[in-house]
Amino acid sequence: MGKGYTGRILRVNLSNGNISVETPSDTWYRTYFGGTGTIAYYLMKELEPGIDPLGPENKLIFATGPVTGVPIAGSGRNSVGGKSPLTGAIGFTEAGGFWGPELKRAGYDALIIEGKASKPSYISIIDDKVEIRDASQYWGKLAGDVEDGIKAELGDKGTRVTQCGIAGENLVRFACITNDLTHFYGRTGMGAVMGSKNLRAVAVRGHTPVEVADKAKVSEIAKFMVEKWPEIAGGMHEYGTTGTIVNLNAAGGLPTRNFTQGVFEGAEDISGQTMNKTILIDRDSCFACPIQCKRVVKTGAPYNVDPKYGGPEYETLGSLGSTCGVKDLEAVCKGNELVAAYVLDSISTGVTIGFAMECYEKGLLTKEQTGGVDLKFGNGPAMVDLITKIAKREGLGALLAEGSARAAAKIGNGAEKLNVTVKGQEAPMHDPRLKMGLGVGYMLSPTGADHCHNIHDTGYEKRVDGLGPWGFVETIKATDLSTKKMAILKVGTEWKIFDNCAQLCQFVPWSPDQVVDIVKAVTGWNTSVYELTKVGERAYNLARLFNLREGFTERDDALTKKFFTPFKEGAIAGVAPTPQEVDRAKRDFYELAGWDRWTGVPKRWKLEELNIGWAGDEYDRVNCAGG
Amino acid sequence: MGKGYTGRILRVNLSNGNISVETPSDTWYRTYFGGTGTIAYYLMKELEPGIDPLGPENKLIFATGPVTGVPIAGSGRNSVGGKSPLTGAIGFTEAGGFWGPELKRAGYDALIIEGKASKPSYISIIDDKVEIRDASQYWGKLAGDVEDGIKAELGDKGTRVTQCGIAGENLVRFACITNDLTHFYGRTGMGAVMGSKNLRAVAVRGHTPVEVADKAKVSEIAKFMVEKWPEIAGGMHEYGTTGTIVNLNAAGGLPTRNFTQGVFEGAEDISGQTMNKTILIDRDSCFACPIQCKRVVKTGAPYNVDPKYGGPEYETLGSLGSTCGVKDLEAVCKGNELVAAYVLDSISTGVTIGFAMECYEKGLLTKEQTGGVDLKFGNGPAMVDLITKIAKREGLGALLAEGSARAAAKIGNGAEKLNVTVKGQEAPMHDPRLKMGLGVGYMLSPTGADHCHNIHDTGYEKRVDGLGPWGFVETIKATDLSTKKMAILKVGTEWKIFDNCAQLCQFVPWSPDQVVDIVKAVTGWNTSVYELTKVGERAYNLARLFNLREGFTERDDALTKKFFTPFKEGAIAGVAPTPQEVDRAKRDFYELAGWDRWTGVPKRWKLEELNIGWAGDEYDRVNCAGG
Repeated sequence: MGKGYTGRILRVNLSNGNISVETPSDTWYRTYFGGTGTIAYYLMKELEPGIDPLGPENKLIFATGPVTGVPIAGSGRNSVGGKSPLTGAIGFTEAGGFWGPELKRAGYDALIIEGKASKPSYISIIDDKVEIRDASQYWGKLAGDVEDGIKAELGDKGTRVTQCGIAGENLVRFACITNDLTHFYGRTGMGAVMGSKNLRAVAVRGHTPVEVADKAKVSEIAKFMVEKWPEIAGGMHEYGTTGTIVNLNAAGGLPTRNFTQGVFEGAEDISGQTMNKTILIDRDSCFACPIQCKRVVKTGAPYNVDPKYGGPEYETLGSLGSTCGVKDLEAVCKGNELVAAYVLDSISTGVTIGFAMECYEKGLLTKEQTGGVDLKFGNGPAMVDLITKIAKREGLGALLAEGSARAAAKIGNGAEKLNVTVKGQEAPMHDPRLKMGLGVGYMLSPTGADHCHNIHDTGYEKRVDGLGPWGFVETIKATDLSTKKMAILKVGTEWKIFDNCAQLCQFVPWSPDQVVDIVKAVTGWNTSVYELTKVGERAYNLARLFNLREGFTERDDALTKKFFTPFKEGAIAGVAPTPQEVDRAKRDFYELAGWDRWTGVPKRWKLEELNIGWAGDEYDRVNCAGG
Repeated sequence: MGKGYTGRILRVNLSNGNISVETPSDTWYRTYFGGTGTIAYYLMKELEPGIDPLGPENKLIFATGPVTGVPIAGSGRNSVGGKSPLTGAIGFTEAGGFWGPELKRAGYDALIIEGKASKPSYISIIDDKVEIRDASQYWGKLAGDVEDGIKAELGDKGTRVTQCGIAGENLVRFACITNDLTHFYGRTGMGAVMGSKNLRAVAVRGHTPVEVADKAKVSEIAKFMVEKWPEIAGGMHEYGTTGTIVNLNAAGGLPTRNFTQGVFEGAEDISGQTMNKTILIDRDSCFACPIQCKRVVKTGAPYNVDPKYGGPEYETLGSLGSTCGVKDLEAVCKGNELVAAYVLDSISTGVTIGFAMECYEKGLLTKEQTGGVDLKFGNGPAMVDLITKIAKREGLGALLAEGSARAAAKIGNGAEKLNVTVKGQEAPMHDPRLKMGLGVGYMLSPTGADHCHNIHDTGYEKRVDGLGPWGFVETIKATDLSTKKMAILKVGTEWKIFDNCAQLCQFVPWSPDQVVDIVKAVTGWNTSVYELTKVGERAYNLARLFNLREGFTERDDALTKKFFTPFKEGAIAGVAPTPQEVDRAKRDFYELAGWDRWTGVPKRWKLEELNIGWAGDEYDRVNCAGG
């Protein structure tokens, strides 16, 4: 009888060429599960605090979950993690696609990469055959060329390639990792970690289907979504996430011109609705998913956007579009092609460029510094051009490749106030002035600002259905920062983190009890929503302990000042949280989480409850040395 | 579409004869649920702190749950609650049978009784026809006679009668309430509250079946237990709880001679195995349950035990048998008949008599005080005789009717050290030297020592299957008092309390996910194990706040000294927790529960999370006045 996971974790040391397999116990799997849990476990166990994220001591971990590769909608995902060169905190990020399922088919739940190769390399995994191969011929090449090259070299079109791109080679701090050219492990700069190891790609091919405990039950659940998606996820098929642009604009919270506005006059132009009517030529999907939420676009001159890199999601439309004041949809799509080809995080890229534009408009960056470019908001060609410069660290791109927080510090003269980051990571396209609970989520995400580690402030009834409600969910407003709201945010956070342990896509509308049914059918464990929230909570606490061990304090759980300044126009004009409100909400969350109200350090009883007392010992070893 | 509950709560004021019906919202039901939750809600809302439990200001609440009366195994239950005359704390206690389902069929989820009748009365509920009727002719009668009389008077054999008995009339502090003569709301002296209101009985007849959201699903689940019980609950049918005597004796923890020993030489004699071979003549059941775990016994002279009062459970065999050192099974069964006929809690009765026997043996009670009786351990006839004396408050019985804690204080001379109570309620037949986690459970039960408000220390893997495990459950020992153990105890407590909110019998082996399926099918709510543990946690916190409002402090969360003295013989000879260990475990539990480590007061964030901030306000009003 299968159990979803293979029970085998592959470890490759690029410094000495050692390749080994370890086999954790079933209890270990049920405790740490996979994805974020696996990553947090190994990073906490194996990294020394204070190491250089771009040095050979850092580790890069690709981790699937028990559900990855099980033929059921939303199971195409896996996580990548390591210490982040962007934030110095823990880094983890997820993508869909087919690479994760292929790693499972090859017989591995996770891949731990250590050390640094002496020359450009890639790893090839074909079932039990694991090799470190020369990648000199791929170094400096665009993602598409590398993908084609490796597939041709290995001679198997079924090979799945994940790679870091030119941006990763150049250690751009928000370089990301892609698989199949269109699926992105976007946040926290894991592409730079990969590049720092002289590792351009990992190619995988496997031939053993993932075995589950109850095949008939898995088929039955899979069938549900195959039949029901038009009804419950039809909008995701029609527009993907791109339908969000007009909604958030109407709500007054579409990040515009580096978060100085919540309404964008070009929203309609860059909307999914417009895209559908013009340049959308196809939709794309992940492993076993019938919904096809991904976009494929193509344009003619001047941008000639290549459809092989797919098309932009909402986050990219917002970050390269409205955040930069760019309303030319084709320019935004060209930007999307370039971040995909260079393998850059589109959110950090767009927000960093938007930040540079505001600096330019405010006179903090001169035309000399921009290389003569008139870097005003709305300059589409300049935005497109800057992407290449960032990936190649050319001109102003060299400064921006450090991320907007470091760039702001270098620019000085108050540029820090224009910078929109939490723990040094650029904020996604959801404004805390509109979604105040999510703002606290940004503060408390272990990876810095991230919109996938907590629940958003609208439709709470639906979001926590089966997790609550507690008789008050329907009355909770987006602007609410009460203790009750924090309680919802906490369980929502645990559930989201759990999604990234099991590896289930947050876009496929499985209800919590369906998730339990899936996990039961896959693993054979008699589990429950209760236990699974504890899995998420455990991974979340491990990630927090990692950061505390690195020297982060509660002061780092803070929102950028911009979010306390109300918008002047739009549906939420005049509305913003106060620093005091947000601080109180944060501390209420600490207490709800079992952390000290003032220091934010998890209490020992919470760690014992989660059975991770060992991580508390490790924190104490580093932070309480000498008493 | 039905939803399990009727949406109607009946209120009867015995002082002024007012009868009314109130209709809480669906949200209210989902929040407080029923049973313990309903009782804790109303007592916290409506009682003033400091009232006399035996005065007209106290309220007596009969509360079913959504599942009560749904044709599914284990759904025959309801709770009764009020301020306890035994402990001064909150009182609640549950029984199976048919009365609860009948109340639902009459159209009510709960019955709140207020005030005090001017003369002996009973309440008759026939659907919408609710009357307060004269009960003068039943006053001073045995339970069986009252049952027969009321049924004859009302002229409907389908009438279900619940009553308090002669013990309740006489305000014996551990008088209980019975329905159908064989189902007991045993603990916390609710019979005395009923008696104090001049209320001898509540007769109910209803004609509207309980409607559920998904009838087909309910039938399917019901069928599961009808088919599977021989396999998964066959032992309960065979021996009921009486099989436990020999097991706990072998384990060295059978309470013997007022908890001075853990091994009883007469265990075999009073065992369920012996009972089955000798005096067992039938088995009895509750509403819709196929398991039939209840005993029916009959004996000849000298005791002539009447089978209409059923037969003893484990708790009664232990308390009237081994705790009193009595190994004459027929004497124990006579005792069982008498506590049923007078309507006394068999646990408190037996433990109080055992306490008196130890006092007598140690010279703290004289032969003059016992009325010439040689009240040694093992004197069966004396034990039997004392039951009548207690119920009628005659001779030594008048002293013992106050409960062993008050009796000990009156006896003085160190009698307090012989007394085995927590918060003034006598301990059940599970010894904390064997089950140390349960010992902490005794300390933290809002009603004083109780074995039904938490999980026992053996078979944890099975007990928390689906609630955990967290990867360490299998390593937890019965003698463990670690923080991890407390975490298990906490969720186990929440789940047990939830059972008493929904009203599902703890003897029917429904798994947590089956419980969720039942609640979903009955109510139509999309709920989960997570939400249901929160329901239990909410009721538990309300009960704690009630006690704190009454002036209880963390000092009252304590074990009697006896449990710190190891046994000299048997399987756990030499083993006992230390006061320090137990205190540390208690404080760890406080923190896990979201209560202050040192004061045990629930923190505001916990109350907000549970949406019972109002109860925190109420606590503050009383305890922080002028502060």
